Amino acid sequence: MTLAVTAESRQSSLLADLQSAGTTIILEAHNGLSARIVEEAGFRAIWASGLTISSSLGVRDANEASWTQIAEVVSQMVDATNLPVLVDGDSGYGDFNTARRVSLKLSKIGAKGICLEDKQFPKMNSFIGSRQPLADVNVFSGILKAVKDVQFRGEFVMVARTEALVAERSLNEALDRAYAYEEAGADAILVHSKQKTADEVVAFAQAWQGTSPLVVVPTTYKVNPKMLQENGFSAVIWANHLLRASIAAMQQASAQIRYGGPDMLEDTIVPVSEIFRMLNYPELERAQQIYGGTKA
Amino acid sequence: MTLAVTAESRQSSLLADLQSAGTTIILEAHNGLSARIVEEAGFRAIWASGLTISSSLGVRDANEASWTQIAEVVSQMVDATNLPVLVDGDSGYGDFNTARRVSLKLSKIGAKGICLEDKQFPKMNSFIGSRQPLADVNVFSGILKAVKDVQFRGEFVMVARTEALVAERSLNEALDRAYAYEEAGADAILVHSKQKTADEVVAFAQAWQGTSPLVVVPTTYKVNPKMLQENGFSAVIWANHLLRASIAAMQQASAQIRYGGPDMLEDTIVPVSEIFRMLNYPELERAQQIYGGTKA
Amino acid sequence: MTLAVTAESRQSSLLADLQSAGTTIILEAHNGLSARIVEEAGFRAIWASGLTISSSLGVRDANEASWTQIAEVVSQMVDATNLPVLVDGDSGYGDFNTARRVSLKLSKIGAKGICLEDKQFPKMNSFIGSRQPLADVNVFSGILKAVKDVQFRGEFVMVARTEALVAERSLNEALDRAYAYEEAGADAILVHSKQKTADEVVAFAQAWQGTSPLVVVPTTYKVNPKMLQENGFSAVIWANHLLRASIAAMQQASAQIRYGGPDMLEDTIVPVSEIFRMLNYPELERAQQIYGGTKA
Amino acid sequence: MTLAVTAESRQSSLLADLQSAGTTIILEAHNGLSARIVEEAGFRAIWASGLTISSSLGVRDANEASWTQIAEVVSQMVDATNLPVLVDGDSGYGDFNTARRVSLKLSKIGAKGICLEDKQFPKMNSFIGSRQPLADVNVFSGILKAVKDVQFRGEFVMVARTEALVAERSLNEALDRAYAYEEAGADAILVHSKQKTADEVVAFAQAWQGTSPLVVVPTTYKVNPKMLQENGFSAVIWANHLLRASIAAMQQASAQIRYGGPDMLEDTIVPVSEIFRMLNYPELERAQQIYGGTKA
Repeated sequence: MTLAVTAESRQSSLLADLQSAGTTIILEAHNGLSARIVEEAGFRAIWASGLTISSSLGVRDANEASWTQIAEVVSQMVDATNLPVLVDGDSGYGDFNTARRVSLKLSKIGAKGICLEDKQFPKMNSFIGSRQPLADVNVFSGILKAVKDVQFRGEFVMVARTEALVAERSLNEALDRAYAYEEAGADAILVHSKQKTADEVVAFAQAWQGTSPLVVVPTTYKVNPKMLQENGFSAVIWANHLLRASIAAMQQASAQIRYGGPDMLEDTIVPVSEIFRMLNYPELERAQQIYGGTKA
Repeated sequence: MTLAVTAESRQSSLLADLQSAGTTIILEAHNGLSARIVEEAGFRAIWASGLTISSSLGVRDANEASWTQIAEVVSQMVDATNLPVLVDGDSGYGDFNTARRVSLKLSKIGAKGICLEDKQFPKMNSFIGSRQPLADVNVFSGILKAVKDVQFRGEFVMVARTEALVAERSLNEALDRAYAYEEAGADAILVHSKQKTADEVVAFAQAWQGTSPLVVVPTTYKVNPKMLQENGFSAVIWANHLLRASIAAMQQASAQIRYGGPDMLEDTIVPVSEIFRMLNYPELERAQQIYGGTKA
Repeated sequence: MTLAVTAESRQSSLLADLQSAGTTIILEAHNGLSARIVEEAGFRAIWASGLTISSSLGVRDANEASWTQIAEVVSQMVDATNLPVLVDGDSGYGDFNTARRVSLKLSKIGAKGICLEDKQFPKMNSFIGSRQPLADVNVFSGILKAVKDVQFRGEFVMVARTEALVAERSLNEALDRAYAYEEAGADAILVHSKQKTADEVVAFAQAWQGTSPLVVVPTTYKVNPKMLQENGFSAVIWANHLLRASIAAMQQASAQIRYGGPDMLEDTIVPVSEIFRMLNYPELERAQQIYGGTKA
Repeated sequence: MTLAVTAESRQSSLLADLQSAGTTIILEAHNGLSARIVEEAGFRAIWASGLTISSSLGVRDANEASWTQIAEVVSQMVDATNLPVLVDGDSGYGDFNTARRVSLKLSKIGAKGICLEDKQFPKMNSFIGSRQPLADVNVFSGILKAVKDVQFRGEFVMVARTEALVAERSLNEALDRAYAYEEAGADAILVHSKQKTADEVVAFAQAWQGTSPLVVVPTTYKVNPKMLQENGFSAVIWANHLLRASIAAMQQASAQIRYGGPDMLEDTIVPVSEIFRMLNYPELERAQQIYGGTKA
């Protein structure tokens, strides 16, 4: 349980998990509270999603939020849990210099890794439009090298994400890009796809000759544990599901309150006491006894 | 619908709604996205709750978030909607000077009102413990006067909330405090209660001789439109229900993903396209056509 | 004098000053305090410089600070003075969408204008290296149009700055760019130069056939009032001088303290009471009498 | 020299310096740039002053800046230098819980210590008015204990500052408070005075029987190395001198520009190239060669 007054002591290594035999399941969170929910559900790592953090702030997934606004949310997530947080760093916020500075800042505030994708800045969400322009492979490799050369304190994982398949480039280009990114220092390769089936990412995995672990983010297609295991995917990121669940619930609740009041809701929403439990209010009451002081 | 590039043009006046004959229903939001949901559901005003904003940040409702962190969230809510936002200002963040500075800042970023309560700083959530110490009535009246004397640009409503009944003081003390706050300039009186029935707030309303409209926040007790109307309550604030709905949904979704994957979820959560609709991605695509430029 | 609790009431119109016959002198500030100094010295507008704000934050003028970090400083400057603040918006922080969003945010927090330059993002300070790549003229014009189409509340001036001469392009290209930017909606044209004399900007002014007022930023070259007037320059921005003065003073003071203690300094630095005067501490003492309350 | 892309590696231990035989000289800074100047001048530690940080933001030293705004400035200072930063934590921002949370956050962002004073929240600058109310000694001791019990990662020094003498209490009360604070866990005692001579703090030091090192902040009185050494003061903090030097310089420069232009200034202010040197622009140019990439 999170202790509001304890320096972080992450219990698991994101890098070790990525390099281990099994498939690590990583779940999205978009603020301190949803991060707590991911932790309480027993996951081993948190995905700080650009889409869902932006959405919760009320802005679009096109770098409308500044990188320091994203970092502030990441800081809240880190402070609220003991899980390693892997941050969606989009395309790096400009160039090699912004990318390395963002990475260093994320590391300083306690995040355990960044995922960078080979697109332009500002980016547009991968599921908008088609054939979005990719970053030049050399320029993007330079960004990766710059981040790799930062002298982090402790673990900081760099995941390189190729959008080649999303941009309707060939499988070969996707592979070539992934090899270049591995050479530039990536700790893992995330291969993204917007197909309706997993065939595309499976084909990638079967052709992959690199040594880096592979990561997938199934949003438009379905996967199952057997397929993930057989094709050697090291991690699967469920990238937006908590936010989508919360939107559905809030839309229903607001409609119900609007047309009847919240009374009927009480069975389907958590009581206020559950908030107090999740955020450890009893610790504060105990501390009040210890430190509150009685006036002399 | 929110336009990301239009200065605010609030459609309704929070003050006029409070002063009108009917009972205005105000729903809680805790970030830009939930504010959008409140707006789309047809409510006329948003309650920027200290409890739910703090909780979503992953901290406790004991002024663990700084006032500028709260203001940042309020700013996101204001920018994401056209509804007036009434901000839970807790006990004013220190003294008359912090209270007036917080109010002015909230006004500058587009909020339309603040609610201040007669407790100490840092406050503790009203539903924790019992007989929490109240602010001295003169000191708190000074805070209200200071806020009232700020030269705001445009409408800025000041709601005074008395916690006298929550602190188990007498009905007479609650009324006396409310009269003092009205005299200090409050535009409305919020009478809070943690009883299991509405009897306490009804008794208050029936004894109330002031001219200020009355506001209630039913969390532990139930209300119905007829009772609200008959007792002359000008507004009812559903203060934490969207967050509570979202927690339940996220807990269920995370458990389902942990023990099966999200496939079964797809029917109960919104699609990604719903996020794009809510945050008006088509506007960005149209703007890209107009402003994106083709290289010379 | 700034009143901490009064909504802004800018005393002069930046646009009117730019369009008037004389040459408006605008001085750089980089935080709330230096903005106060500019105001007390009698200037009519403040230049919120990217170079000096970045430098005071301890980072480089290469968009190392995020746009929200810059906006936060601008907000402090606006809140501390009654002068219009013209913000150095660099190249717009990405594309037309970031540029219009940054502009709208700056307007909402009370800034009165933005200056955008035809360079890439991230930018590099104009005095580093040579022949830095310029933005494509059509792409940059799209940015200007997007900002122009924002529905601001009240005055918001858009200055277009061409770096063509700094990039060692021809006078004709500089003029062509300026005409394009005027057509795209610029309220004024800033022509930048890094020559050791003013000849280049004078040549530009003499060839200029547009209707937009012209602005210069003499850093490497000298100007005098007669030359500015004769060549029709509407405004001159002294873009970094307060920061440079403060660095010299702080370097000297720190050396003196290191090797002798501050005693000798006392005659050359302001007393603490001057800080109290500048930031209007007496208002707080008076307000304490009025609002501070005496416990009942 | 600071490297923008290297995790912190503080070169000296603030605690060891406080506990060593000599008198450590600590100089004020109020942003990233002034912190660099302190470092370049050869000091061993930086005082992040509440007065000067507030002033540079344009607000008053009465907790008008929120604690997260102060922390943001501290973060910039830490990132810009390799010196340990001791943060002026005022009275702890509310109670034991805010104090320990602020301390933990400061530690996480790289600060190496906090100074807490026995006053109320919001505080008022010590040189305003007289006989300001002190915190109850038991309540303040509770705050100190709470901070002491935080599980920091690495060094984090807690200095307890008594304002008893400033509040015109007796020497005995000042000593009693200091003993209580030492027992509550303070690593050092700061004894503050607003007398015109050092007699008061010398009397305190001569009567002091505790084991904690003593710290002084001479603002109204003078000190010399011999006196400091003989009376066993472990550290002296020059708490506001760089800001005061910068104000004088900026006032003079702005007047000169207003009534003549900056030409005459050029000899007394640093050139722009000095800014580039201080903030290590050459590193960015070198990195551009290494990581900038040439398009494939």
